[in-house]
Amino acid sequence: MTPQTLTFTQHVGEALDAAIGRLAPSSIFVLADSHTATLVVPELHSQALREATLITIEAGDAHKDLAALTHVWQALQTGGATRKSLMVNVGGGVVTDLGGLAAATFKRGINFINVPTTLLGAVDAAVGGKTGINFGGLKNEVGIVAMAAEVIVSTRFFVTLPPSELRSGFAEVLKHGLLKSGDETLRLLDYDIEAADLDTLLPLLETSVRVKQDIVLQDPLEHGLRRALNLGHTVGHAFESMALRQNAPIPHGYAVAWGLAVELVLSHMKLQFDTSLLYRVVHRVRDIYGTPRITCDDYPALLDLMRHDKKSERGEINCTLLRAPGDVVTGNAIADDEMTAALDIWRDLMGM
Amino acid sequence: MTPQTLTFTQHVGEALDAAIGRLAPSSIFVLADSHTATLVVPELHSQALREATLITIEAGDAHKDLAALTHVWQALQTGGATRKSLMVNVGGGVVTDLGGLAAATFKRGINFINVPTTLLGAVDAAVGGKTGINFGGLKNEVGIVAMAAEVIVSTRFFVTLPPSELRSGFAEVLKHGLLKSGDETLRLLDYDIEAADLDTLLPLLETSVRVKQDIVLQDPLEHGLRRALNLGHTVGHAFESMALRQNAPIPHGYAVAWGLAVELVLSHMKLQFDTSLLYRVVHRVRDIYGTPRITCDDYPALLDLMRHDKKSERGEINCTLLRAPGDVVTGNAIADDEMTAALDIWRDLMGM
Repeated sequence: MTPQTLTFTQHVGEALDAAIGRLAPSSIFVLADSHTATLVVPELHSQALREATLITIEAGDAHKDLAALTHVWQALQTGGATRKSLMVNVGGGVVTDLGGLAAATFKRGINFINVPTTLLGAVDAAVGGKTGINFGGLKNEVGIVAMAAEVIVSTRFFVTLPPSELRSGFAEVLKHGLLKSGDETLRLLDYDIEAADLDTLLPLLETSVRVKQDIVLQDPLEHGLRRALNLGHTVGHAFESMALRQNAPIPHGYAVAWGLAVELVLSHMKLQFDTSLLYRVVHRVRDIYGTPRITCDDYPALLDLMRHDKKSERGEINCTLLRAPGDVVTGNAIADDEMTAALDIWRDLMGM
Repeated sequence: MTPQTLTFTQHVGEALDAAIGRLAPSSIFVLADSHTATLVVPELHSQALREATLITIEAGDAHKDLAALTHVWQALQTGGATRKSLMVNVGGGVVTDLGGLAAATFKRGINFINVPTTLLGAVDAAVGGKTGINFGGLKNEVGIVAMAAEVIVSTRFFVTLPPSELRSGFAEVLKHGLLKSGDETLRLLDYDIEAADLDTLLPLLETSVRVKQDIVLQDPLEHGLRRALNLGHTVGHAFESMALRQNAPIPHGYAVAWGLAVELVLSHMKLQFDTSLLYRVVHRVRDIYGTPRITCDDYPALLDLMRHDKKSERGEINCTLLRAPGDVVTGNAIADDEMTAALDIWRDLMGM
């Protein structure tokens, strides 16, 4: 698998011009959503994009669907795109997921560049090649693994993000820190995401994205190691799905942060993850994300959701855990009573 | 790129059971068209397929479209397909092209097996990973390169094919023979496809399909060598498109056979391809496929179509040619007067 060229910069226009120079496309299409088309695209200041054709989709996960994908294919076709054309995806996860799929399936695949405009998009969706749309009510039901030729990451676009979106993305940054090392974890626990300075965030983000890229390059199709990236997500997805069922949706990153805390409790129970670091992470999660409304009455539904997680097999709850920061063990089967105990301990530590 | 497991056999049920044993899917879906669902699927005699779910699409290239693709995704979803499910595509090029795309994009890719039921499908569409659907009036406008895990080739299903379909597929067999060697070319020139004995056809087909697989494995994404497979197709596609415009469509293989003959004339003109073999091929093509209704009045339109072939660059006519059988030169730029001369010589040799 060819590594994606990653550029971390606040000079996005120059980075785009350099990337486009390397790819030498016959024509360029920019995909944006209704927000980034007006707020970000005009601010890119790329010479190479002056002649580009803009394609716009509606913002929001509800529009990451077959209708929008069809619209993009049609726009490429009517715009005369050839196999040597380039697509530049400017937006959050919806735009990079859908745009990557559209590009990778147009004429059996044209090059694309991702320019993530949210912290969550930068640290998660834009890198690693997972593309997709929602279909038949299921998330990412249709998609492929196809790598962007280049990813250009800047924190410049985050100034307009609401604080909850910055916090949401920071949960994935924290996850990558835990997957990397104790030092990186401590650095992140000390970082004040509430008063985030976008220039100090850029190097943190670079370290974080490279953790993901290193793992993806070793296992692009998720046969093994890539499951490390699932840390926090078995429990997190269950929180997210339950909130959705209760018509009180929570941001993905909040669910992941709480899920990380529960799975570190499990890591302590099953793999002797250090208690003092566990406490520090759980308390930081509580400080940043607050506490969800979960009682022991919710456990049966939560465990059921975990058993039906798309990464579980044979109806067994399965988690990625840590012996210590940077020391990952994937594929841990979790018994119901272990999960129940972990949820109890976590609620206790969170003061719930 | 992992080689596809190819099996050549008249015992398709056993071969399917063995392949399914290797892949160990959680559930199986069979994709067929309205013909193969009734004529072929019940004759497969596979134990493993007894529990499979049948998905049917309408037969014919007009149905290789987004509506049929959506239907297949929905059927997989409502049938409870997981990432470990398997799809078995039973049909000609429409079924293997569309089924491969559906499988490769469902939950970011499930395994699929191709069981081609036409000679053209066996020798062309089923092997090599090109998948796709027609979109916005253009052939294979949406698709990806995704390899079937296994391909099971039998000539058993060809008994019900009309002679024109056998001839059509044989043009691609002849092309592969020319790409392989002089001996293979002579063997094919001596083969009586008009009175094809399906058991003698199977070993010829095996040699032919392996020529394609060897080329594809070296260059799956068509950066270079794979263009060898384009032999006969620059001119052939122009014949096919013109016939379509004149509302007198011709089978793909007929167009390819005539295109092969013209491109061998060019191979002689530009690369000293041997004249006696050239004459033998052209006369055999005339005997099997007859002559198309093409006069010098058609040349301007034909040259224009060749310039706009999807594999041409910068509006230049580009052909794959041969110095000799097995000695391929890709990327030959052809001047208008050279193509005109070649068409004249070809019409003369064909007795048109």
